[in-house]
Amino acid sequence: MRATFMYGAGDVRVIDVPDPTLQQPTDAVVRVVQACICGSDLHPYRSMPADENGTPMGHEFLGVVEETGTDVTSVKKGDLVVAPFAWQDNTCDFCREGFQASCRHGGFWAAGGIGGGQAEAVRVPQADGTLVKVPAGVDAALLPSLLTLSDVFATGHHAAVRAKVNARTTVTVIGDGAVGLMAVLSAKRLGAERIILMGRHKARTDLGLEFGATEVVAERGQEGIEKVLALTGGDGTHTVLECVGHMPAYQQALGVARVGGVISRVGVPQYNDGDIGWNLFGRNLTLTGGPAPVRHYIEELMPDVLDGKIEPGKVFDRTIGIEETPAGYQAMDDREALKVLVQF
Amino acid sequence: MRATFMYGAGDVRVIDVPDPTLQQPTDAVVRVVQACICGSDLHPYRSMPADENGTPMGHEFLGVVEETGTDVTSVKKGDLVVAPFAWQDNTCDFCREGFQASCRHGGFWAAGGIGGGQAEAVRVPQADGTLVKVPAGVDAALLPSLLTLSDVFATGHHAAVRAKVNARTTVTVIGDGAVGLMAVLSAKRLGAERIILMGRHKARTDLGLEFGATEVVAERGQEGIEKVLALTGGDGTHTVLECVGHMPAYQQALGVARVGGVISRVGVPQYNDGDIGWNLFGRNLTLTGGPAPVRHYIEELMPDVLDGKIEPGKVFDRTIGIEETPAGYQAMDDREALKVLVQF
Repeated sequence: MRATFMYGAGDVRVIDVPDPTLQQPTDAVVRVVQACICGSDLHPYRSMPADENGTPMGHEFLGVVEETGTDVTSVKKGDLVVAPFAWQDNTCDFCREGFQASCRHGGFWAAGGIGGGQAEAVRVPQADGTLVKVPAGVDAALLPSLLTLSDVFATGHHAAVRAKVNARTTVTVIGDGAVGLMAVLSAKRLGAERIILMGRHKARTDLGLEFGATEVVAERGQEGIEKVLALTGGDGTHTVLECVGHMPAYQQALGVARVGGVISRVGVPQYNDGDIGWNLFGRNLTLTGGPAPVRHYIEELMPDVLDGKIEPGKVFDRTIGIEETPAGYQAMDDREALKVLVQF
Repeated sequence: MRATFMYGAGDVRVIDVPDPTLQQPTDAVVRVVQACICGSDLHPYRSMPADENGTPMGHEFLGVVEETGTDVTSVKKGDLVVAPFAWQDNTCDFCREGFQASCRHGGFWAAGGIGGGQAEAVRVPQADGTLVKVPAGVDAALLPSLLTLSDVFATGHHAAVRAKVNARTTVTVIGDGAVGLMAVLSAKRLGAERIILMGRHKARTDLGLEFGATEVVAERGQEGIEKVLALTGGDGTHTVLECVGHMPAYQQALGVARVGGVISRVGVPQYNDGDIGWNLFGRNLTLTGGPAPVRHYIEELMPDVLDGKIEPGKVFDRTIGIEETPAGYQAMDDREALKVLVQF
C-alpha cells in the first residue's frame, strides 16, 4: 500500500509499504477513507533530523473496518469508524478517569510498529477500546466533520472542558489555527456568550466568527494583551484557551486571564519553563490542559455533527490525494492551507 | 499602644505607636486578644533590606471590637471577631466569585497606612466585609483554633479545595510547616482517606498523623518522589498540596502527581519560572492555588471548630506576650517553634 513517511525536516515522501495485517486478537485493520495533516505534524516538518529509515506519519483518520481479530466485538468488517489520535483499551483506571491519552495499555500511531494514518490502511491495536462506529448510511458530506473528531475538534473541546467553559464564563482563544478555531466552536457549543479570538489571519478569524467568536483581536504580545484587557474593563476573561504551544502564547494567556481564571492549554508546549510565580499564583489562576482524551469525547460530540448542528469540517480548506501529502505539508507550513484533508 | 515592627532581616522590635482610630465610616477598631506569627513573616525576616522607618507586622488576629464607624452594621462594640489576612468589601464581583484576597476595594494589613496584627489594636477597613463575629460566650480554650481561621487553617483548606480533595482522591501534602499540617487536617475534613505527608521533622509529622495523615515520607528530592511513587504503585496521588513555596517543593509536586491530577499551591512561590512543559502537560496535570480567600471560608469552617470536631489550634506550640515577638520570630526561624501565638 501507499503510506506517507517523513525522512527529516521538509522531507515527506509517499512510499510503498506492506499492507498491515492483524497481529493480536484485539487488532483490527482499517482501510482509510479520509485522513488529514495536523498542526503538530509541522513540528517535525520543521525540526526533524534526517533519518534514512523515515517515520510513518498521521494520527487522524476515519475508514472502513477490513478485518478484525478474534477478540474484537464492538466493530466488524464493513463498519465506518473514527479513530482517536491515540489508541487505548478504554477500560483501565486512567481511561475510566477520562485520560485515555495516558491509557496504561495504549499508545500512539506511527510509533512502536504501528503505522500512521496518512496511509491507505492502518492496523489498529485495542480495536474495541479505540474505534468508534459511525452510524450506517451517513451522508458523505458529513465525513470531514466526523474526521475532526479524531483530533482537532476533540482537542478544541478538551481546551474548553478543562477550562470549564459555560454560559457564565467569558473566553479568550489564543491562536487562529485549526485547533484554535475548534476551541471557538467548542466554547460556543458549551454556551459561552463572549468569545474573543486572538489571531491575525483574516480568512481564519472570519471562520472563527462564523464558529461563534464575538470579537477578534489581531494584535499580538503586550499590544494584544492590552486590547483584550480594554475589551473586558481591564479584567481579562474567566477562561483562556491556549491553542498554540509557543511561549508568547502562554505569556499572552497569563496577561489576559481574569482573577480566579483558568488557562487551558492544548497546544503541545514547545518549551519547558514558564512564569508560574506571583503572576499566576497571586491571582489564583489555574493552569490546566494536556493531550485530549479523544475517545472520551467522540460519543458525546458525534450526535451534534450527525445532526448538522455544527460543522467542524469547515476547517479543511484543501483536499488532496495520498500522492500529494508532501505538497500538503508544504501548503500548511506556508500557511497557504489551514488544514489539509487527504481523501482516499 | 505597643506594636511589632520589622526594620530589616533579623531585626524585629516592639515599639510605641499611636492607638489606631476610625478614619472611614466603614472602619472598625479592634482590640487584639490573640495574634500569631506566620511562616510568610519569615521571608522578610530573612531578606528584608534595612529600613529605619520599619514596617508593621502581622496579618492574623482575633480581638474585640472597640469602636465602629457609622456605616458598620454587622459587628458592634464588644463583639469577638476574627479577621482574615486580607481586608475586603466582600461584595464586589471578585469577592462574590470567591476570590476575596483580590477584592477590588480591599488590601492587606501592615500596608497602605493600615497597621499589623501583631499589635495591641488594629484599624480594620471595610469592617462589614472583613470581620466575622464569633458567638458570644465561646470557651477561651477554643480561641487558638479560632485564630487559625484568620490564615493558616483557611490557607490549608484552600489548598485542598482548589485541588478538589474528596473521599475518592489520594493526597500528598508537601511540607510539615503549619500550613502543611493544616492542609492535612483540611484534606481529612473533606473526606480524603489516604494522605501522604512529606516532611522530616518528627514532632511536626507526628502532629500531621494526629491531624489525619496516613503515611509520612521523610525523604526529599528524587528520593522522596520515588518513595511516594512506591507507596502508590508507581502512579502518584490525584492531588498534591504544595505548602512550601520553594522550587524543590514544586519539583517534588510534579514528580508525585498522578495522571490527570492537581497540584495545588498555597506556599507563596519564591520563584518565577518553573517546569510547565511536557512533564505537566503530557499527563494532563492541573496547577492551581493562590492566596486563600479566607473570608470566603471562615463561616464554613468555624462551626467545626466551635463543635470541637477539629483542633487546628494545636499548631501553636509556643505562646508569648507582645514584648516577646522578636524572640518569637527567632524561635520560628530556628525551627524551635512551629507556630507562635501572641497572647494579649
